[in-house]
Amino acid sequence: MENKQTEISKLGEFGLIEKLTKDIPLKNASTKLGVGDDAAVLNFGDKEALVTTDLLLEGIHFDLRYVPLKHLGYKAAVVNFSDIYAMNGMPKQITVSLGISSRFTVEHIEELYAGIRLACEIYGVDLVGGDTSASVTGLVISITCLGEAKKEDVVLRSGAKPTDIICVSGDLGAAYMGLQLLERENQVAAGQKDFQPDFSGREYILERQLKPEARKDVIEELAKAGIKPTAMMDVSDGLSSELLHICKSSNVGCRVYEDRIPIDYQTAVMAEEFNMNLVVAAMNGGEDYELLFTVPLTDNDNIDKIKGVTKIGYVTKPELGAAMVTRDGGEIELRAQGWNAFTGAK
Amino acid sequence: MENKQTEISKLGEFGLIEKLTKDIPLKNASTKLGVGDDAAVLNFGDKEALVTTDLLLEGIHFDLRYVPLKHLGYKAAVVNFSDIYAMNGMPKQITVSLGISSRFTVEHIEELYAGIRLACEIYGVDLVGGDTSASVTGLVISITCLGEAKKEDVVLRSGAKPTDIICVSGDLGAAYMGLQLLERENQVAAGQKDFQPDFSGREYILERQLKPEARKDVIEELAKAGIKPTAMMDVSDGLSSELLHICKSSNVGCRVYEDRIPIDYQTAVMAEEFNMNLVVAAMNGGEDYELLFTVPLTDNDNIDKIKGVTKIGYVTKPELGAAMVTRDGGEIELRAQGWNAFTGAK
Repeated sequence: MENKQTEISKLGEFGLIEKLTKDIPLKNASTKLGVGDDAAVLNFGDKEALVTTDLLLEGIHFDLRYVPLKHLGYKAAVVNFSDIYAMNGMPKQITVSLGISSRFTVEHIEELYAGIRLACEIYGVDLVGGDTSASVTGLVISITCLGEAKKEDVVLRSGAKPTDIICVSGDLGAAYMGLQLLERENQVAAGQKDFQPDFSGREYILERQLKPEARKDVIEELAKAGIKPTAMMDVSDGLSSELLHICKSSNVGCRVYEDRIPIDYQTAVMAEEFNMNLVVAAMNGGEDYELLFTVPLTDNDNIDKIKGVTKIGYVTKPELGAAMVTRDGGEIELRAQGWNAFTGAK
Repeated sequence: MENKQTEISKLGEFGLIEKLTKDIPLKNASTKLGVGDDAAVLNFGDKEALVTTDLLLEGIHFDLRYVPLKHLGYKAAVVNFSDIYAMNGMPKQITVSLGISSRFTVEHIEELYAGIRLACEIYGVDLVGGDTSASVTGLVISITCLGEAKKEDVVLRSGAKPTDIICVSGDLGAAYMGLQLLERENQVAAGQKDFQPDFSGREYILERQLKPEARKDVIEELAKAGIKPTAMMDVSDGLSSELLHICKSSNVGCRVYEDRIPIDYQTAVMAEEFNMNLVVAAMNGGEDYELLFTVPLTDNDNIDKIKGVTKIGYVTKPELGAAMVTRDGGEIELRAQGWNAFTGAK
């Protein structure tokens, strides 16, 4: 329509959102925080409402050749809960909109919903609304999640301070290696009737890909220990990408140690088998849905008491940049190699 | 996957939603109303938060051959605001998720966003979040809107009582006739280079289709006049369909008068030209985004003072069913002939 046209892949997802949403003035008293964190923050008296939304498209975000519909529903809900936990809130309600192409039957959609409802049950979330319609192409899943937090509890990306300790829950890279495995087996299976993939000994990485959990437990443990992170995010696009988000929002730098990055042995075995760089997979794989957060130095001992949380580095002044300290003491600048849905490239 | 498979078109959109969401227990104290009205209702002290969501898919809900992207963005936002007004609330925040196929450029998406932002500006709504990603197929727009209302002000579909007066704002059927016109001109234009459709004298029906407005003004007028409707909905699927929703939710019947249905003369002229039944178009066309509401008989005189609102009938006991009283005094049972996205059939 216009003369000058810019390909979207030039900007990428984050660049596009930034361009579209910059300089949006917020008009309503209840709007405390708009675009730019895991969730928006709305004020209702002494409580804050948190809002986050995710759009999942067949062929881009999931492949039904190897993702069971029930798992897909479960994951679609859980990734939204994860965004609310990442604000130090509790998810309370979701709305689900579906675009359904003609190859799906009522029973298929019931399977998908069974997964969504199971996730809601486990995480204590109410399904309060939605919209379904036909789609001319694949399956479209749009979920919006609302959460709550006390005003003083909300944690943004922007509060990290130099000398803060950088922590991450669980382990990283497993979901990515699970995806590699599923894609390989799917290729091997293509054309071979009765092919049965052998997934034994790989259950963990498959589960991390197909049925991830959100870290409600970590949020509860932190509260119990009286620790309020200074900044927090969930790891959906890969640790490198999320660290850079926190550094940018908080105007700080960081150092994380290669030998501190938590990695499960199944992830390591799989990377070996695929001849992939394990640390690259763990730093950039994404879809881990672990919590990445920073705490003041004074919480150093407290953090050690929380199971399954690893201290991976520390926050620096901004001029030091964001880097990983390698095993041999060298430094590699962090770059966001997270998944770019606009190019499909890692 | 299972043996017994049911085609979705057998249930239709409402049937499918009902099947998927029935018996969902609500667990959270803040969840006051889940699936089944224009918006969900969440409680935050003396305020209620309202949540509604809409999914728009290219090829199903819009056709970019004749819908400018800026208008599309405007409409996508406004239809969500309309759902919040239909609860007697004020829209405050939206999130926007886009799935974008490769034929769209940054400039295209900026056009779309310009429309969304314009709607937000006019209606006083904050754009607080979203998600963009690639789509392998067409454009996907998912908007969730949050609104607010005082606890005592929220109006559901379920409060209509026998003898209540049925009212509707504005006029009906124009958006549907606008769509017919656009589709015809588009067919004529196909293959004809330099074809210029003549839309003069049809601006109103085109605007109703391409750039509808939500009836914030009616909500404000009602409040000013001290009238609280007993039940309310917005007319998106057609008056017949919405009347049946209110009758079902309120467990009542209704009578509406054919000669009271408000219709603009451009709508009438167009229906004549297309040789279509005008009343059928007005009752079932949909996309009017007018407000349909019921008020107690005692508000009869008050309602007359509100400009642009027409009294079209009254609420009855449920056993009398829902019917239209024709000009000759006969009765036609109302049936939902609203747009069914799963069959495309009227």
